[in-house]
Amino acid sequence: MPVFDIAEYKERVSKTKERMNREGIEVLLATDPANMNYLAGYDGDSFYVPQGLILKIDEEQPVWFGRGMDANGARITTWLKEENIRAYSDDYVQSSIKHPMNFVTNILKEKGRTNKIIGVEMDQYYFTARCLTELKKDLPNTVFKDATLLVNMVRQIKSEKEISYMKRAARIVERAIQVGIESIEAGVRQCDAAAKIYYAQISGTPEYGGDYVAGAPIMLTGKRASAAHLTWSDEKFHRNEVTILEIAGCYHRYHSPICRTVYVGNPPDKLKWVAEKSVEALEKALDAIKPGITCEEVEKHWRKAAMAEGGVARESSYHRLGYSIGLGYPPDWGEHTASMRPGDKTILQPNMTFHLIPSIWEEDCGFGISEAIRVTADGCETLANFPRRLFVK
Amino acid sequence: MPVFDIAEYKERVSKTKERMNREGIEVLLATDPANMNYLAGYDGDSFYVPQGLILKIDEEQPVWFGRGMDANGARITTWLKEENIRAYSDDYVQSSIKHPMNFVTNILKEKGRTNKIIGVEMDQYYFTARCLTELKKDLPNTVFKDATLLVNMVRQIKSEKEISYMKRAARIVERAIQVGIESIEAGVRQCDAAAKIYYAQISGTPEYGGDYVAGAPIMLTGKRASAAHLTWSDEKFHRNEVTILEIAGCYHRYHSPICRTVYVGNPPDKLKWVAEKSVEALEKALDAIKPGITCEEVEKHWRKAAMAEGGVARESSYHRLGYSIGLGYPPDWGEHTASMRPGDKTILQPNMTFHLIPSIWEEDCGFGISEAIRVTADGCETLANFPRRLFVK
Repeated sequence: MPVFDIAEYKERVSKTKERMNREGIEVLLATDPANMNYLAGYDGDSFYVPQGLILKIDEEQPVWFGRGMDANGARITTWLKEENIRAYSDDYVQSSIKHPMNFVTNILKEKGRTNKIIGVEMDQYYFTARCLTELKKDLPNTVFKDATLLVNMVRQIKSEKEISYMKRAARIVERAIQVGIESIEAGVRQCDAAAKIYYAQISGTPEYGGDYVAGAPIMLTGKRASAAHLTWSDEKFHRNEVTILEIAGCYHRYHSPICRTVYVGNPPDKLKWVAEKSVEALEKALDAIKPGITCEEVEKHWRKAAMAEGGVARESSYHRLGYSIGLGYPPDWGEHTASMRPGDKTILQPNMTFHLIPSIWEEDCGFGISEAIRVTADGCETLANFPRRLFVK
Repeated sequence: MPVFDIAEYKERVSKTKERMNREGIEVLLATDPANMNYLAGYDGDSFYVPQGLILKIDEEQPVWFGRGMDANGARITTWLKEENIRAYSDDYVQSSIKHPMNFVTNILKEKGRTNKIIGVEMDQYYFTARCLTELKKDLPNTVFKDATLLVNMVRQIKSEKEISYMKRAARIVERAIQVGIESIEAGVRQCDAAAKIYYAQISGTPEYGGDYVAGAPIMLTGKRASAAHLTWSDEKFHRNEVTILEIAGCYHRYHSPICRTVYVGNPPDKLKWVAEKSVEALEKALDAIKPGITCEEVEKHWRKAAMAEGGVARESSYHRLGYSIGLGYPPDWGEHTASMRPGDKTILQPNMTFHLIPSIWEEDCGFGISEAIRVTADGCETLANFPRRLFVK
């Protein structure tokens, strides 16, 4: 039932252990749902309760832990043997007297894992301050080390099968953004356009369907186009208003995001200029991408075009040009590893994947444009194939 | 632009301060997106980066902090004055050298808030172990106190307007569950049924649209009906298979969830029996709900019917009967306060709202049923009005 061959999971585990070894981590607690999926195949919408994997450097398989009612989900979706699926009873859930991390301590104690150096994902959404406090209380003599991006770093370079999943996600998002652009008309309710986008994201193509996306469709209309992360309302679209759409397709949890902008009516000259210049600058970055170049160098190419005198982007509202993407669960399709911005010296390698999104969210002018790309042997290719311009209706 | 009157937000802030006072907390750091929305109105799909409110006990308004590109979202959706909207620059985002909590420290220092007792939401998804570590590093002499459910406890009793929003969410979910049941047929792809559910959740009713829901539709088919939190695939539905649907409607972030079960074909006698007994036991609990009774007493009524000899539920796969609901963001529509289970002595009061979900996820028989309810002056009412039975097609 896992969506990759067992051999691929084993290779991922082995690469993870290499990193653990380098960083002096003997036991890894992986609580990021994307990392759980990556190493074990686990795919449940259950990350609102504490769950994770325990990977000991000298054991072949990680141990899954989670809530009792989710153990069957682990049996169905992972490649793990029965004894490595460990479920806590329901009285651990949102309890004022016990915490699921106390259950995790017991698993750690069982196999003599507590006198080891344990890596924990310190800055991962679902590893709360309380999780760490409970572990430290239960295991006062254990050394905990920050392993926040340890598995994420392994995830950066995709296998051919992962790329094929991201391309399927791209086929889905091409349809969804097309539907979004078609649906935006004066007099149509924003929620009805959003509903059509969702329909396209989930029904997918005739050959394969879509998964739930890590983030809701971003739909910024009129005044709201000055804000980066608002969603729709049940108000209607109006004539002479801009709408920015940022959405993703998702296939087996792999994402391909895209951002495009629609104007209903006659766009002001400034918006047309911003659109043209934004596309030009984005294309400078795309042209620069190839193995061997660093993230900050890619950004420099965009910066030269966009931020020079008379450029389209302003220093005062600067944000990073792009970030690595792939496997993801709510609330984020980003991998949190490399960013295209000054100071990021990550060297691009084939099959790294990024979302470049030099959108502009300003009070007098909002314009969104993006491309999700794969680094190829000698350059890059966009995952989706969709016209790169302002859509006027 | 906030969706409640300013007076309602002020009352919420005032009730929160009463609790802060009782618990000896002088400054509260509220990082749960639902708590940010509750106190300030903030509604952005931006919780994948650190953000929050700082509420000082002797100040009228909380201070919002978040990423630069989200400040306009705060200006648009909150009732806060300009000086209380504080944005960090983009180099704080997913950086290896600085953390947004260092920015928060600076705000705390500015107004002499650091020699106070600061409450933090220790076990809230978006307050990671690193967030606490950074604060403690920056403010070694400050006392931090756990304030995880402080605002959530205030949220438990809903205002009339909040109830009206939940009822709108219920109207939406009635349509969505109906669409789901109608869509499930042998030969139809699961993803296409899920897409129709999403469409109904977001387009809402002709009078008002739906928001994105805190959790993806749960759709458990065939063997997967033994797992509680899996979603759809692009496989087709088959004859003689059961499907459990658990979905919510969402209006202005207020949720009304529902769970129902569909069987395509002739259901086995065991499933029919389980359905009948499950509904009976759920109705015992519903009949018992009224102001003054405790959560554990409600559960006892269900338990007596469901877990006695020959009952429908098994001790080995026991889970809580229900939990409080309301305002929510991904990954959860639950409030994390009261649970209907042994030991929970929360006394029910009018306008508390719960989701009762005594579903059964077992290998030989999966059956889901639930009701979202409001405690009334002398009993309870279900938010949605939908037949309570196994649907056979």
